Amino acid sequence: MKTRAAVAFEAKRPLEIVELDLEGPKPGEVLVEIMATGLCHTDAYTLDGLDSEGLFPSVLGHEGAGIVREVGAGVTSVKPGDHVIPLYTPECRQCKSCLSRKTNLCTSIRATQGKGLMPDGTSRFSYKGRTIFHYMGCSTFSNFTVLPEIAVAKIRDDAPFDTACYVGCGVTTGVGAVVNTAKVEPGSTVIVFGLGGIGLNVIQGARLVGAKRIVGVDLNGDKEEWGRRFGMTDFVNPKDVDGDIVAHLVSLTEGGADYTFDCTGNTTVMRQALEACHRGWGVSVVIGVAEAGKEISTRPFQLVTGRVWKGSAFGGARGRTDTPKIVDWYMDGKIEIDPMITHRLTLEQINEGFDLMHQGKSIRSVVIY
Amino acid sequence: MKTRAAVAFEAKRPLEIVELDLEGPKPGEVLVEIMATGLCHTDAYTLDGLDSEGLFPSVLGHEGAGIVREVGAGVTSVKPGDHVIPLYTPECRQCKSCLSRKTNLCTSIRATQGKGLMPDGTSRFSYKGRTIFHYMGCSTFSNFTVLPEIAVAKIRDDAPFDTACYVGCGVTTGVGAVVNTAKVEPGSTVIVFGLGGIGLNVIQGARLVGAKRIVGVDLNGDKEEWGRRFGMTDFVNPKDVDGDIVAHLVSLTEGGADYTFDCTGNTTVMRQALEACHRGWGVSVVIGVAEAGKEISTRPFQLVTGRVWKGSAFGGARGRTDTPKIVDWYMDGKIEIDPMITHRLTLEQINEGFDLMHQGKSIRSVVIY
Repeated sequence: MKTRAAVAFEAKRPLEIVELDLEGPKPGEVLVEIMATGLCHTDAYTLDGLDSEGLFPSVLGHEGAGIVREVGAGVTSVKPGDHVIPLYTPECRQCKSCLSRKTNLCTSIRATQGKGLMPDGTSRFSYKGRTIFHYMGCSTFSNFTVLPEIAVAKIRDDAPFDTACYVGCGVTTGVGAVVNTAKVEPGSTVIVFGLGGIGLNVIQGARLVGAKRIVGVDLNGDKEEWGRRFGMTDFVNPKDVDGDIVAHLVSLTEGGADYTFDCTGNTTVMRQALEACHRGWGVSVVIGVAEAGKEISTRPFQLVTGRVWKGSAFGGARGRTDTPKIVDWYMDGKIEIDPMITHRLTLEQINEGFDLMHQGKSIRSVVIY
Repeated sequence: MKTRAAVAFEAKRPLEIVELDLEGPKPGEVLVEIMATGLCHTDAYTLDGLDSEGLFPSVLGHEGAGIVREVGAGVTSVKPGDHVIPLYTPECRQCKSCLSRKTNLCTSIRATQGKGLMPDGTSRFSYKGRTIFHYMGCSTFSNFTVLPEIAVAKIRDDAPFDTACYVGCGVTTGVGAVVNTAKVEPGSTVIVFGLGGIGLNVIQGARLVGAKRIVGVDLNGDKEEWGRRFGMTDFVNPKDVDGDIVAHLVSLTEGGADYTFDCTGNTTVMRQALEACHRGWGVSVVIGVAEAGKEISTRPFQLVTGRVWKGSAFGGARGRTDTPKIVDWYMDGKIEIDPMITHRLTLEQINEGFDLMHQGKSIRSVVIY
């Protein structure tokens, strides 16, 4: 079949909207019509050539929502017509990782996914006979895409696609880091570094679980209004702080935060986030993806005196099990998504969406097919 | 009253055995006759002048066991005749830290303890009218010492002093790191870096909780026999490994360890310990105390893909609550101490004990009064 898609033919060039050839689902696979997809910094990171493992030509996009249109042999968990979110972190429920009960990082198809291929080692996309790679196992910048059954989460039918798609990455990454990775308790004090889309979702995750105090930190003062919109109680702009930002935050939080979250990707900030934790029990969660080659450092004394340094990928969410719950929380009004979708675009406008992101003018731009 | 003590008059000089003046217990304090004390690397670290906060002249020693001889006004939890272990990590059960239920690092008397003083801001020790400082709130290199009530753990009367004293630091630090800090589960794979006294106690802690595989790592091949004595199942000498030690350990443990423990104090090893953890869930615990100014580093990707970096002080044990339990485990044969006490000395031989330690010839030397 044919599908309209925005293709990244090579790094550092705008996406091109073309008609691709798409092979139908093989056994264990499903064909999904993508109804909406978010534009995420990770797509931009790959498109800008910063990801050393980035493959081209490829169909980027990993934050989508759509409808199952066809299923391959042996598929039992979804059927045509089901509404689904593609999962870049699948959930096979059979590998060592899934069975560990300790991680969401299913490893069953990691090798082929990293090579831009389906689990059988081939691609379903081609353009004029040339193979086009899949991306993060999703490729939501295509109107139709093929996914392994274990990489689709069935969600409720009444969730709008243009907001539910954000659950496919940003919402789950932020809210999940609070709920699944840090397990923040009611009454906690939380500091969030970086108030982009992820940071705002961390903030609303902290509000959801009853945090007492939610401190947002950002160099851009315009973010204060956004933070407060989702539950932030205190805003700190490091530019306005005399002296050490860590000492300031520790003082502000009466000894340090119970939980801190880095949503910046800056390794210096990651260290500040750890050291702004309370002695004895503070937990710092790294969410941001750092530049290649950058390292985090601290004195081991910070750990020996009780601070914990950990990280979160896809919010620690098990793709098929937890993603639908987050959609439910949205539909039940426990979390908000609508105000975060700042721009709605057609596929033809997708490059404008990346421009908006680079200019810091959007929280989330969504392409609607 | 008078007490015989080994006094550190200044750094880098042998201890001197002298008669000190000792004031009796004030309200909330107890006088303890120390019956035995271990010699720990931390005492040597201070005596060697490496601790920038070390105070002189002082009575070192923090790993003792003894008998309460007198109690000050208001003391209710112990009485003369009770057998006790002095606690450098007290447990007031009333401060923010104790009430957090998340840390053993009681902060109620931290400020004065750090200054070598009792909670009222004075010392009980003097020599020819000159103040002698307390050390780590214990000063067990004195036959008699005065301690805050919250800094003594009452233990059973039938535990021998010359082995129970080791619970005052080394045993609890190692076993507790496994039981309290890491909470290692049965069937886990564990790697222990550094097979000194702490490492051996980590090993027997891992055996106690039913670890399946316990890998010991040490540059000294002589340690293999010691490790196996306490439950180590595999020994790795990095000198014998071609190539990267982390890759070797990850391969040996089929993907990395569930839990790793640094018992070396070497920041390079701390990084190896983190990176030898299993993707998705491995937890690395820093126990060793690093040289002043040294930092730990890693790529944040290690955390984002599910490894956790934490630390442990006094094995995460609440002093008065958990220390007596560890003595019980010893008396019940669940853990061993006897073979670790390699040398028994008189107070007059204490400097020889430090020589043995520096030469790596002892697991634990104990002074018996």
